[in-house]
Amino acid sequence: MTKNVLRAVGATAAKPSLREQNKQDKLHRIKKAAAELFAERGFTKATTTEIAKRADVSPGTLFLYARTKEALLCMVMIDDLKAAFERALRSVPPGAPLPDVMEHLYGHTLRFHARSKEQSVHFVREIGMMREPVADSEVHRVLGFIVQELVKVISRMQQARLARADVSAADLSACFAALYFQVLSQFLNGQLTMEQALKALKLRMQVGYEGMRTSAST
Amino acid sequence: MTKNVLRAVGATAAKPSLREQNKQDKLHRIKKAAAELFAERGFTKATTTEIAKRADVSPGTLFLYARTKEALLCMVMIDDLKAAFERALRSVPPGAPLPDVMEHLYGHTLRFHARSKEQSVHFVREIGMMREPVADSEVHRVLGFIVQELVKVISRMQQARLARADVSAADLSACFAALYFQVLSQFLNGQLTMEQALKALKLRMQVGYEGMRTSAST
Repeated sequence: MTKNVLRAVGATAAKPSLREQNKQDKLHRIKKAAAELFAERGFTKATTTEIAKRADVSPGTLFLYARTKEALLCMVMIDDLKAAFERALRSVPPGAPLPDVMEHLYGHTLRFHARSKEQSVHFVREIGMMREPVADSEVHRVLGFIVQELVKVISRMQQARLARADVSAADLSACFAALYFQVLSQFLNGQLTMEQALKALKLRMQVGYEGMRTSAST
Repeated sequence: MTKNVLRAVGATAAKPSLREQNKQDKLHRIKKAAAELFAERGFTKATTTEIAKRADVSPGTLFLYARTKEALLCMVMIDDLKAAFERALRSVPPGAPLPDVMEHLYGHTLRFHARSKEQSVHFVREIGMMREPVADSEVHRVLGFIVQELVKVISRMQQARLARADVSAADLSACFAALYFQVLSQFLNGQLTMEQALKALKLRMQVGYEGMRTSAST
């Protein structure tokens, strides 16, 4: 998937048509206007009419790029989430054990969601587990990339015999993701402060890794 | 909490006033009408106007009992969920290890949600982790009861030295709940069939219990 994406990006960078350039320019203005208005007025109060106006496009054009305010929010947030996750990936402490690596990666995304909490509440509801697969292909692609990278981390741990290999890396990763998602939800709905959420994340990653058996029975 | 509830129920049963009897009667008619119409027309298509009509109450009265169609759905489903969970509790195989007990309990609630999937999608969205605490006190009470019973099961396992005791029963229970909730979500949004969901549940409960370490490093 990453390879195809790189190819696609490369091809676009090589010779963008005028039409494509216009499209990218509009998309950039729309994202910028939406990000600004969400930050200034909050997600709930900002309107798509205002966003279209500030981006200097018609409401009809805006609709072509994002069918709902929620879709617009996802477009705005997904780039930043990707950047935050990539920073997290690059700064994994070398030689750290699996639960610490997971705590590091998910700690970064948790802090990312703390930066604009109201927006994250709506964003996570939109992309969260209870929703149908996300329509926006860019959002879908980034979420796929994140899942894939997390699975790769676990695969490498399995190869180094630092994680059990009798269960697939995808399944192990799904377990960590479930534990993370619960903490994220409890933070976003106000049950946990950021400090409590980071502490809970640490504990959950540790328990997920060590299991719930008694030490005696391991 | 259970004790208080029993006291409350006992008190009501002892000498219900006419006013209280009327109220209970109306509540019963509303729940029955809502359950029937949700089943007949589906949650999305059923309207509160129809429900009020069939329950023989005014729309204003219906609003006093449930402010939204979603709240009405929760009222209808919570009794059945409680009954399903209690049946699951009574039929726990004696002497079963912790992951099997969790698989048994959550398997029952998973099957419960399969019975009227469309309703469950809306119900779980409403009571799910991303929402503010549920307003309806009865719904809140039943969810609290379920959480409490799950924690009790783990407490007993800890006392019998069949689960680690260095982490609280509430935290261990939260881990199992997170793993269950992911499977439930994937079933409700159509990513998993019921058969796949039950298989995933088994694996997740096992991995949660055993941990993700290699056997060698345990």
